[in-house]
Amino acid sequence: MPKITIAQNILAANDTIAQDMHQVLTTRGIRTINMMSSPGAGKTTLLERTIEGLRGQLEVGVIEGDIETGNDAERIEAAGAETVQINTRGACHLEAHMVRDALKEINLTGMRLLFIENIGNLVCPAAWDLGEDIRIVIASTTEGDDKPAKYPQMFAISQIMVVNKIDLLPYVDYSLEKVRRQALAINPNLRIFEVSCRTGEGLDVWCEWLSAFVHGTT
Amino acid sequence: MPKITIAQNILAANDTIAQDMHQVLTTRGIRTINMMSSPGAGKTTLLERTIEGLRGQLEVGVIEGDIETGNDAERIEAAGAETVQINTRGACHLEAHMVRDALKEINLTGMRLLFIENIGNLVCPAAWDLGEDIRIVIASTTEGDDKPAKYPQMFAISQIMVVNKIDLLPYVDYSLEKVRRQALAINPNLRIFEVSCRTGEGLDVWCEWLSAFVHGTT
Repeated sequence: MPKITIAQNILAANDTIAQDMHQVLTTRGIRTINMMSSPGAGKTTLLERTIEGLRGQLEVGVIEGDIETGNDAERIEAAGAETVQINTRGACHLEAHMVRDALKEINLTGMRLLFIENIGNLVCPAAWDLGEDIRIVIASTTEGDDKPAKYPQMFAISQIMVVNKIDLLPYVDYSLEKVRRQALAINPNLRIFEVSCRTGEGLDVWCEWLSAFVHGTT
Repeated sequence: MPKITIAQNILAANDTIAQDMHQVLTTRGIRTINMMSSPGAGKTTLLERTIEGLRGQLEVGVIEGDIETGNDAERIEAAGAETVQINTRGACHLEAHMVRDALKEINLTGMRLLFIENIGNLVCPAAWDLGEDIRIVIASTTEGDDKPAKYPQMFAISQIMVVNKIDLLPYVDYSLEKVRRQALAINPNLRIFEVSCRTGEGLDVWCEWLSAFVHGTT
């Protein structure tokens, strides 16, 4: 009985769906970003600010992953982006088939940039390809500056790290230099942005980069 | 082929090991607490402060769960508690057999209170019994006050919620009243402590409660 291969089979099936989705999205001229972080690092707030920052420049869509509640999708919709909510009902990460089903419920016409907000979890989502072009991990200054070393896989598979909540640096023990060093030791190609979604610091640089990413000029 | 029952079999096997451990620990007069939270909510720092607060009153031991690194175990050892480190090498939660193996490496003589610090993850650890007497979830004021509603299982299976980082309340959008209300709606029996591991606020009440818990007077 091939018990020990089950996990691999599931991942292989996931990757096939993810590759098909990637092809569909790319053909439509849509770039896709898988956003991952701990619970409460600021994924939804960064999305709200990003949608505001790109308004009038880029049509943005969002697939919102949550275990329960539709709160985040309501926030994103209020910010003005086409949104669909996935509730995983207990599952700790999104899988490609969930995103595929969500894509059927979202209007892709005119969309240039699609964010997939994963479940708040620094471990499990790292293993699942969702058809994205790039993966970003959001770290927050209130989580401690040891997270890259303690959750290395997430930082190894991401192309971008956004350090959020830099407005709180005066009130916490957090070394930006240490977190940069740890993250780059794991992944030397990681691109790093430092922002405060509360004060807006750094968001212009982030939005400019996203715009260039969509237009293929990064 | 009974493929779909595998997860249940694993959980059943886990629970058997957990029950055996619980019996062994109880017979030795040791009370055991499974600590869970998001990454960076402050599990290790709360342990450091708790060990300081109980020094001379209660012998404390700690089993430290991390995906990688031995940093937390070093911090706990420096704080003066008997410690053993588990590295899960990618796994998103502790399981009972890991704790059983760790118990062989720790000196239980004189110990009255054993903390098991789980992997930083608000989802997966909730499903795994580790032989504990009680489970505590640590929420932090920097994570947002919607966490009980978004990760209900963790709050449903815990007996205690510790809200940490209350010193940062002036700088974040966080309603203690809202988080209390959400958490109690999910679990009306949840006991709630509010602390700052940075300033020490609330830690005396927390340590008094722990002492009473060990002495069976709660």
